[in-house]
Amino acid sequence: MSIRVIFLGTSGAIPTEKRGLPATLLKRGTELFLFDCGEGLQRQMIKAKIGFHKRMKVFLSHLHGDHVLGLPGLLQTMSLMDRKVKLEVYAPVGTKHFLECVAESLQYALTFPLEIHEIQDAGVACKETEYVIKAVWANHVLPTLAFAFIEKPRPGKFYPEKARAFGVPEGVLWSKLQHGDPVTLSDGRIVAPEDVSGPLRRGRKIVYTGDTQPFKGFARFASGADLLIHEATFDDTLSEKAVEDGHSTPRQAALEAKKAKAKTLVLTHLSARYTDTGLLLAQAKKVFNNVTVAEDFLELELLLSE
Amino acid sequence: MSIRVIFLGTSGAIPTEKRGLPATLLKRGTELFLFDCGEGLQRQMIKAKIGFHKRMKVFLSHLHGDHVLGLPGLLQTMSLMDRKVKLEVYAPVGTKHFLECVAESLQYALTFPLEIHEIQDAGVACKETEYVIKAVWANHVLPTLAFAFIEKPRPGKFYPEKARAFGVPEGVLWSKLQHGDPVTLSDGRIVAPEDVSGPLRRGRKIVYTGDTQPFKGFARFASGADLLIHEATFDDTLSEKAVEDGHSTPRQAALEAKKAKAKTLVLTHLSARYTDTGLLLAQAKKVFNNVTVAEDFLELELLLSE
Repeated sequence: MSIRVIFLGTSGAIPTEKRGLPATLLKRGTELFLFDCGEGLQRQMIKAKIGFHKRMKVFLSHLHGDHVLGLPGLLQTMSLMDRKVKLEVYAPVGTKHFLECVAESLQYALTFPLEIHEIQDAGVACKETEYVIKAVWANHVLPTLAFAFIEKPRPGKFYPEKARAFGVPEGVLWSKLQHGDPVTLSDGRIVAPEDVSGPLRRGRKIVYTGDTQPFKGFARFASGADLLIHEATFDDTLSEKAVEDGHSTPRQAALEAKKAKAKTLVLTHLSARYTDTGLLLAQAKKVFNNVTVAEDFLELELLLSE
Repeated sequence: MSIRVIFLGTSGAIPTEKRGLPATLLKRGTELFLFDCGEGLQRQMIKAKIGFHKRMKVFLSHLHGDHVLGLPGLLQTMSLMDRKVKLEVYAPVGTKHFLECVAESLQYALTFPLEIHEIQDAGVACKETEYVIKAVWANHVLPTLAFAFIEKPRPGKFYPEKARAFGVPEGVLWSKLQHGDPVTLSDGRIVAPEDVSGPLRRGRKIVYTGDTQPFKGFARFASGADLLIHEATFDDTLSEKAVEDGHSTPRQAALEAKKAKAKTLVLTHLSARYTDTGLLLAQAKKVFNNVTVAEDFLELELLLSE
């Protein structure tokens, strides 16, 4: 199944002519996972031709305006478009109150079920058959979560010749084995998937920091990520301001990527002062080579491992 | 003093790739008047290079999300930029509660005084030395205001030869007369501005409908407008839907412009279904010739009458 990550808003705090407010979309097959929802997100979704009727989960890192003010408008537009599919929101405590008071003030009625899961504790925020999403407390100026999207391992490569050798007839039973389930043959023998397949294949892992200073435990949380999306609000020369405001610099983001042995690093949530991001890229490259500075509508594909 | 009207958001309800949510800016000298504040307005202001520190009054027609969800982000960005100048908001009852509950949820602190004037009754909403802004109840699905920005008449054309004939010495006294004030000469005679000037020159009038169906009394309210900014959400073939949703069509907008003897009509708040607005223009033109269909960043200058 394909996974694409689309950067729909890459500025921090204040938008610019070229950058919208924070919003990063992960698209796995036809399911959407939105990390933060800055003002203007719905229009960015229209520009990127995402659609408003798909299965979707929204993850908010923290309740600062630049990360959440796109959500009420998104809900309203989805309702105007008569969405019927449930929308799930995973976010810090306070999100329910925020959405309720806006809905009450602006009197919009939802056409779809809205499930708000307020996250009280770090750990597994959301668990499905094929993936989990974990949350960890980051280090910002107010309670802020970082998220890891982790695919469960896929069954190993299927070897038809081994299945034949075990006497498994082609058809339904092969399909069960390919999906990781054991089968019982007509003579009572049980064949396990590992009997006819290679080792489990690891799933993909994408980590999103939200707003944060570097913090202890993050590299372990992000360990082995295929893609680490790390904020880098200020360049290294403004590291004192970064500490003051609870943000990171490119060097810090790159050090985390290196410690976590991430494959790819993307820097986002950039201060509006950087019209040319060459400096940010150069600072990160000194520490970690496989790094990109995000721009709006940048799209990355994460391939399956063999 | 120059007046420019800049259309910063011209869609209705749902934005499109080309059109932001409703927001129309009037710039008189260095003072700004914003009519409605849809999501994404702050970014449109950045694109149009408007600035966040100017004297500014915001007028909200009604508390639907598409007309107001840009305001919290605007306030937050102004604070991040350390605005000090007071911001005034004129809007229906409920606005204070909306802004307070968002501010409480998102914990932003303002760096400037915010004055919210909730409008209970039609009439003069705001009065300054050089202009008034009047509000009237429109006809939408919830309490909605239309606004008229009206410059007070300017003193008539000054005739130096008449001033000389009255024996008024050039300098300070001329200046007072030119500004519409009477002067007392050294011999005790009083000279009135009308003694040395032509008739008062009318100020400019700009009328903004917000969302509305046509309603009785509007043409009088908009009477003689230099510019009538009228919503035209649906084209004439969807007039039943327009009634149902409390909106207008191009023909209806044009009829109002004609009745009001407006000089210019601009149609805005267009449904996302119209990627080509030729139809809307043609429908309005049948009734009123001097009409334009707004697009984002369209800018009109309103010249002073002689």
